[in-house]
Amino acid sequence: MHWFVAQHIQDSQALLSESESHHALKVLRLKSGTPIVVIDGLGNGWHAEIVGSNGKQLACSLVSPLPTQKPPKLSIALAPTKQIDRTEWFAEKATEIGVDQLYFFTSKNSERKQLRIDRIEKVVTAAAKQSQRTFIPKVHGLISFEEVLQLSHNKLLAWCGENERPEQHVKDAFVNIKNPLIIIGPEGDFSTEEVRMAKKQNCQIVGLGDARLRTETAGVFAAAAYQLISNL
Amino acid sequence: MHWFVAQHIQDSQALLSESESHHALKVLRLKSGTPIVVIDGLGNGWHAEIVGSNGKQLACSLVSPLPTQKPPKLSIALAPTKQIDRTEWFAEKATEIGVDQLYFFTSKNSERKQLRIDRIEKVVTAAAKQSQRTFIPKVHGLISFEEVLQLSHNKLLAWCGENERPEQHVKDAFVNIKNPLIIIGPEGDFSTEEVRMAKKQNCQIVGLGDARLRTETAGVFAAAAYQLISNL
Repeated sequence: MHWFVAQHIQDSQALLSESESHHALKVLRLKSGTPIVVIDGLGNGWHAEIVGSNGKQLACSLVSPLPTQKPPKLSIALAPTKQIDRTEWFAEKATEIGVDQLYFFTSKNSERKQLRIDRIEKVVTAAAKQSQRTFIPKVHGLISFEEVLQLSHNKLLAWCGENERPEQHVKDAFVNIKNPLIIIGPEGDFSTEEVRMAKKQNCQIVGLGDARLRTETAGVFAAAAYQLISNL
Repeated sequence: MHWFVAQHIQDSQALLSESESHHALKVLRLKSGTPIVVIDGLGNGWHAEIVGSNGKQLACSLVSPLPTQKPPKLSIALAPTKQIDRTEWFAEKATEIGVDQLYFFTSKNSERKQLRIDRIEKVVTAAAKQSQRTFIPKVHGLISFEEVLQLSHNKLLAWCGENERPEQHVKDAFVNIKNPLIIIGPEGDFSTEEVRMAKKQNCQIVGLGDARLRTETAGVFAAAAYQLISNL
């Protein structure tokens, strides 16, 4: 069963976007009457059926709703890696495991100062459909580290802390936290000045355990940790 | 500081393998007297210093031992993915997060029936050094699903269970388990016949939560889950 994101939904009818319609009509060569699944990316999905197209956009009728899925609660801010495929891999895995919003930012030791957000949006959309999620994470960026610290989340900053232990293990910090955002630094980690700034902004400094994880691994580990801890 | 795997260690002296020596001498162009870190891949590591080479193999003297690292306890058996880079990603990430032994196997719905174990060994060795681990996971494969069921571990089998709920969530199954092995199926999941066989061999059937994870994501999620649960 193929999954598609609807662009417009009204009165049991949905229109797919031009790119989704192109994929359905030209790549998969789906015909009228084909049963599909349509999602709105906000947590809702339906069994649907292709009705027809106006040449560019495909119309379908919604048959029955899918079971409701709770939208994920954790958001992640990550400094993109030098190698872009590592950042895309993170975005894919975080979406599969469950993430609300993804922020990408630059920080003092960032080697990558540019990021194509449209590419990340494609990755998370494909990952959501592939893992049968009706919710698609919202992707923001690139913003500055200072802007991340202004976000209205309960913020945690993951830090290796070469000479100083982080205040708490992430698994303890994740217990009963509301609207959490975990901030993951670049390959060269956060500077001590950035850690100081974060503390001033009421950001909790957390560790991810004894292992030294790569940036993208730290992001996926955090997503898995929240998924497990919030369901304990 | 560069990390190298020793091939032979005796009386505060270590010899690197030919490929590690080649990397040190020809790629990094390290000279005698350069401080390096040498690990045995079994959990031990030392600050060391290059002494010289016999042309092919580099000799170094061990200066002082690194702090001891507890070797990971979880082992993972995974049916390799159609796209090999996904399996290599899994091997890299599992090593970073911590894994004892990696088994690769074929099962009924496996699309990939071949795997270059030497490539996976290179991936886990690089990942261990990069994440500053003195322990390198042992890699086994390809074996059959039947052979996996014969392994002398406490076995858990991760299953999506389209129509039947798995017996337990992995986070509960991981509590206080000794010598655990989690078995992750191929893209098409395990057949119901394979699940039945596993149950007969005292293998516990576990779920990884509501999300539908790809094979390689399931493996990384399991590694993260064990890391968190065994330290709660």
